Amino acid sequence: MCQKRIKRILSIQSHVSYGYVGNRAATFPLQLLGWDVDAVNTVNFSNHAGYRNFSGTKVTPAELNGMLDTMEENGMMGQSYILTGYIPGAESLSIVKRYIERIKRDSGATYLLDPVMGDDDRVYVNSDVIPVYKSMLYLADLITPNAFEVQLLTDIKLITKEDVQHALHILHTQYGVRNVVITSIGFGEDGCLSTIMSAHEHDTHTRQLQYPLIEGYYSGVGDIFSALLVANYEAATVDMKNCSEIDILTHATEKTVASIQAVLSNTRQYAAKILPADIDVDIDKDTDNKRRIERQRARELRLIQSQDELKHPVITHRATPFV
Amino acid sequence: MCQKRIKRILSIQSHVSYGYVGNRAATFPLQLLGWDVDAVNTVNFSNHAGYRNFSGTKVTPAELNGMLDTMEENGMMGQSYILTGYIPGAESLSIVKRYIERIKRDSGATYLLDPVMGDDDRVYVNSDVIPVYKSMLYLADLITPNAFEVQLLTDIKLITKEDVQHALHILHTQYGVRNVVITSIGFGEDGCLSTIMSAHEHDTHTRQLQYPLIEGYYSGVGDIFSALLVANYEAATVDMKNCSEIDILTHATEKTVASIQAVLSNTRQYAAKILPADIDVDIDKDTDNKRRIERQRARELRLIQSQDELKHPVITHRATPFV
Repeated sequence: MCQKRIKRILSIQSHVSYGYVGNRAATFPLQLLGWDVDAVNTVNFSNHAGYRNFSGTKVTPAELNGMLDTMEENGMMGQSYILTGYIPGAESLSIVKRYIERIKRDSGATYLLDPVMGDDDRVYVNSDVIPVYKSMLYLADLITPNAFEVQLLTDIKLITKEDVQHALHILHTQYGVRNVVITSIGFGEDGCLSTIMSAHEHDTHTRQLQYPLIEGYYSGVGDIFSALLVANYEAATVDMKNCSEIDILTHATEKTVASIQAVLSNTRQYAAKILPADIDVDIDKDTDNKRRIERQRARELRLIQSQDELKHPVITHRATPFV
Repeated sequence: MCQKRIKRILSIQSHVSYGYVGNRAATFPLQLLGWDVDAVNTVNFSNHAGYRNFSGTKVTPAELNGMLDTMEENGMMGQSYILTGYIPGAESLSIVKRYIERIKRDSGATYLLDPVMGDDDRVYVNSDVIPVYKSMLYLADLITPNAFEVQLLTDIKLITKEDVQHALHILHTQYGVRNVVITSIGFGEDGCLSTIMSAHEHDTHTRQLQYPLIEGYYSGVGDIFSALLVANYEAATVDMKNCSEIDILTHATEKTVASIQAVLSNTRQYAAKILPADIDVDIDKDTDNKRRIERQRARELRLIQSQDELKHPVITHRATPFV
């Protein structure tokens, strides 16, 4: 595919007024890295659902369709990249699919599909979106599921390395996805997490990036991950044009993980400073509602305060072959 | 008022997926300057109404009230600054007023009210918002009307310098607004525009900043103006704490105008490059719909490409006393 260097992306995700998830986590890092982000919001909420107390509305399928239709009529669909995240219903997702088919056909945009469905064995979308995601995978140039989302897409629970290889094989060959990044999986040494990168051209090449787990639960991490991966991937396709797809994907992922580790470390330090006694408490088990919400607030990502880490990540962990 | 250096702002304005007006024009510059922006959207549109072809929905007063209520319950109203822009109906505006009263009472936040009502003798809100804005002026620490909005608030048409002084007197003494910035007015040499700054402590001190007009109509300029003014004003209150209010306001405005002139100059250059024949055509009079929309797109503000100019404006024009 011809790589035009137009840094303009269509990002279809949620909006919250307070805090950083969905488009609120994706837009700023991309803008900071020089991208015009056309941000189509799938919900308009006060804050993310993890607070339990939240309000606002989901954009209806008809509204979503109307906005995308108008943008198409107005010639506003010439993006070089597309990114989709949290889209809460099958009908809206099917509408998004139809527009992405058209944009890809007309402008050859590169599409990063983040199949946001759940985490830690908990599904947070309607189960009818799962088959729609499966039917969309052929459109994606790059997908960024977590381990649980891989399981939802392939029906394989990722226990062993063979399970991962099997699931990747299904995604590459049965669904035709060229690049897969499994964002986080508990493989590796104690206290570590891994990200798995896999590129399929003639053969499949798979690598593992291992790094220390930063304790605590932070919302929106997957959303910055996919946003930064787009920016780093596009830059790598330009800077490394004689390299293999797996080398490009690996370099982009190493930069992305470096930025995210820095943001999480800054967030954890901030939370520890303002609520020192509570830093390692499991928020979800707290029965004091007010204190639980206060802890959630303290753990909102320190994106705005981490601009240097977003722009100039220092890579300290390198990927190795996944065997 | 005690100036805490918490760079967190509540910004209540419109959202568009494509282009830069309302919160889409305000959020990125503020974030770039280190501000956490809690962005409450008053509309969710595909693009701004200047394209004529647009779709999406206005947030209903009940939805707006629900989101602000939830944020209050969740302890998310501890902002140090508040910024309001386009709020399309009197009922929504009255709701916003009620929350701002409470936030100011509880946390002493500084409030910049941009009374977005119209421009060039054209009103683009329901006329019933005008009395609500008048009733809210007592809450504002700083307002940023254009010349037409001053007229709507004071019933004085700004023809002569005496008219301006009369209108400022009404805003300062009858409505109790401490700081007024009239964002643009056609006073000064040929081919120039002016911004008028006026601070009222015991006396009123008024200054005029004159700079060359950049030809062409660009949407969202007022929205970046008020956003940058917040950031530059807050910085000036810290850096110039022994200075008078008019000196602080003047310095903040000079920086703001310098950034905006640079953004407009970058935007005009870009539009001239991609549509060279059309740069000085009056968009609104174009009867070819497709070409008119293409021109609008070419004139979307080059915010993302002007980060250096937003962060480090070079002041080339200085204010002088307004006499």
